[in-house]
Amino acid sequence: MSPISATTASARTAIRRLDVREPEFLPTLDALLAFEAEADERIDAAVTEILRAVRTTGDTAVVEFTRRFDGLDVHSMAALELPKSELHAALERLPSAQREALTVAAERVRAYHERQKGESWTFTEADGTRLGQKVTPLDRVGLYVPGGRASYPSSVLMNAIPAKVAGVGELIMVVPTPRGEKNPLVLAAAAITGVDRVFTIGGAQAVAALAYGTQTIPQVDKIVGPGNAYVAEAKRRVFGTVGIDMVAGPSEVLILSDGSGHADWVAMDLFAQAEHDELAQSILLCTDAAFIDAVHEAIDRLLPTMPRRDTIAKSLAKRGALIRVDSLEQACALANRIAPEHLELALDDAEAWIDRIRHAGAIFVGHWAVEALGDYCAGPNHVLPTMRSARFSSPLGTYDFQKRTSIVNISQAGAQHLGRVASILAHGEGLQAHARSAEMRLKA
Amino acid sequence: MSPISATTASARTAIRRLDVREPEFLPTLDALLAFEAEADERIDAAVTEILRAVRTTGDTAVVEFTRRFDGLDVHSMAALELPKSELHAALERLPSAQREALTVAAERVRAYHERQKGESWTFTEADGTRLGQKVTPLDRVGLYVPGGRASYPSSVLMNAIPAKVAGVGELIMVVPTPRGEKNPLVLAAAAITGVDRVFTIGGAQAVAALAYGTQTIPQVDKIVGPGNAYVAEAKRRVFGTVGIDMVAGPSEVLILSDGSGHADWVAMDLFAQAEHDELAQSILLCTDAAFIDAVHEAIDRLLPTMPRRDTIAKSLAKRGALIRVDSLEQACALANRIAPEHLELALDDAEAWIDRIRHAGAIFVGHWAVEALGDYCAGPNHVLPTMRSARFSSPLGTYDFQKRTSIVNISQAGAQHLGRVASILAHGEGLQAHARSAEMRLKA
Repeated sequence: MSPISATTASARTAIRRLDVREPEFLPTLDALLAFEAEADERIDAAVTEILRAVRTTGDTAVVEFTRRFDGLDVHSMAALELPKSELHAALERLPSAQREALTVAAERVRAYHERQKGESWTFTEADGTRLGQKVTPLDRVGLYVPGGRASYPSSVLMNAIPAKVAGVGELIMVVPTPRGEKNPLVLAAAAITGVDRVFTIGGAQAVAALAYGTQTIPQVDKIVGPGNAYVAEAKRRVFGTVGIDMVAGPSEVLILSDGSGHADWVAMDLFAQAEHDELAQSILLCTDAAFIDAVHEAIDRLLPTMPRRDTIAKSLAKRGALIRVDSLEQACALANRIAPEHLELALDDAEAWIDRIRHAGAIFVGHWAVEALGDYCAGPNHVLPTMRSARFSSPLGTYDFQKRTSIVNISQAGAQHLGRVASILAHGEGLQAHARSAEMRLKA
Repeated sequence: MSPISATTASARTAIRRLDVREPEFLPTLDALLAFEAEADERIDAAVTEILRAVRTTGDTAVVEFTRRFDGLDVHSMAALELPKSELHAALERLPSAQREALTVAAERVRAYHERQKGESWTFTEADGTRLGQKVTPLDRVGLYVPGGRASYPSSVLMNAIPAKVAGVGELIMVVPTPRGEKNPLVLAAAAITGVDRVFTIGGAQAVAALAYGTQTIPQVDKIVGPGNAYVAEAKRRVFGTVGIDMVAGPSEVLILSDGSGHADWVAMDLFAQAEHDELAQSILLCTDAAFIDAVHEAIDRLLPTMPRRDTIAKSLAKRGALIRVDSLEQACALANRIAPEHLELALDDAEAWIDRIRHAGAIFVGHWAVEALGDYCAGPNHVLPTMRSARFSSPLGTYDFQKRTSIVNISQAGAQHLGRVASILAHGEGLQAHARSAEMRLKA
């Protein structure tokens, strides 16, 4: 902390102060929540060209784009694959505290995701008809890991571990290494999680290579992991050819407070969200006006001490809010409207309020359950639905790397009973071949 | 059947005959499977305009588009809502055989989907930390039902029942009624399944109304159900604002045969797929060349007797195939490559081969398990992954109308242990506010 920023510590930090009793509160809140990624024609056109080139010429195009965009002086795909020995060497060279922290985090994430594993089931009816559902892991999955500043080892853990727990046959990671810069923590995380192959490629060309396959890179069945606007657009385009995870929006936290707990903790939890980027959203809903003042004061006092204070300040000013509410019941209703990615229940009696929450990616219950623990090592996944999509979608999980097949084994007796029903309904829909295929199995 | 078609009964029906031993077999197969919906700029532009208009003016735009596209002389949204009494009246007026068939089908589909219901779970660690996953039904779902020829009551059952089993609060159905034509079976199916509201609107305007909400139609959280190219494009566009189910391609069946069973049954099962539309795909893989000849003969003989013979003939000629394979092991490997929507194991010993199949939407096991039973009343869903997406996706199910929220309740003791791990990893990622929010909970 420089002396200069210390002297500005008491300046008032710009962040919206709202009250539910204001007449225009709900429209103001909705405007604050609204976020739409802008369509960018330049990106669309670039992605179209990259997908086409990789689909047509495979390795040649990938190598050429990697030379051009990442400044790597390579001439073959083989030079862009990292041997497993390099991943393990990265893990061995880590300071022991980091290696142990990664290992503990990976173990906890693995244990939690084991509980999400789906199992096949069947049941047999009285006439011998057997119905069920067969659960199968995906054959091959691609994991995108961004390069540069947003290259996070925790993201490797959170995407690779559920895939491995599900039983995915082969997990292929791609991570760009601009000008050859490799992130040792990311490589170590790949070693710990048992990633099968790693290619140092990125951008839309990496997504295309995974989706279509090249001479060197095998085609995958699903692509997961975060990326920039080019990666997101490429994933959207290849959806259908392969599966994709959600396309994430800016990260969000909503903190519900009754004025219990520490204002400094709440302020720092808001910062932890805001430091991701300027578009991240940090909102406090609190029944206690004095506590809101204390949080604002803590923000003013702590902000200058933060290395990422510029990003935090912009995020709080642009998308943050401290909101006074009349009751916790009202706060829960607003939380369901907001459907936040992360919800902290910073309440003394937090457990009692979980049942009121219908829409959130993850609920952090009580003062000790700070979101950062969930981001790294509590066990649940940190890939969560953003932009109100918690209304209809779920955290990334083991279930995203398994899929189901219906099993329909009809007995001869069952075909008699069911065939008559199917025949009537098929004729009702004008589908006579459907009807006759059922009728042919009827014993007159 | 006219006398004219009877005289042509012995004409050879056009359908590809392939053999795995041909040198170009795999490329030929892949070309046969390849299907990409063509982008249509006219549709894109129309959908853009419709979405914008409905988002801006709500009911006014919906009423106007419905007048224009469906030829309905209405002037308010209220006139486009069907009262529940009309649904129940449609059910009461059905011939009793149809009413009973619909009821039996609905009960069986409900019983199967009850078994897919996810349940919340939590577990507590030694230090008091409690982790888990809370399962919540979606609040409100929109169900699109096509009008005209493709207006299928079975589709209402298959989409509405899993939503109701999941516990969805409100289910809103939209179904266009061009020139006022209503399908009584569709209305009856809505009554049986407990659909909450029905609007007689369709096209991109109906999708927009559900996704954005209007003065009369409440915004939903997810939209499911099949539709034409305008509906599919509109669903793609509103994805993110609301959830959507898969965008389906042409329907497909793959039949595996060892030459046991009846050639007529196999021929009719191929017809049942082909009668959907010209793009539907019907393929037989068989180890027995004589049986393939018998199936082709049955096709020649039975085709002229089918009311939808023109569609069937075009589909078989364009996208069908009778393929000789060397062994059932090879047939299963090809089935996994094809990843069909529907797979019939037309084998005497069919159960033994289920484990070899990794990728299929539904597996129909044995000679009695004809696909038509699954389409209507066996119990499993008939909305299944097409176009090889069974590699990474699942049948529509109860799970599609529930979503999960992670529960992270950290004890004070847990925050000490986990806080140190999180702090190390957060510093490693350069996210100091994450680190400090964890460190603040540490007791020195």
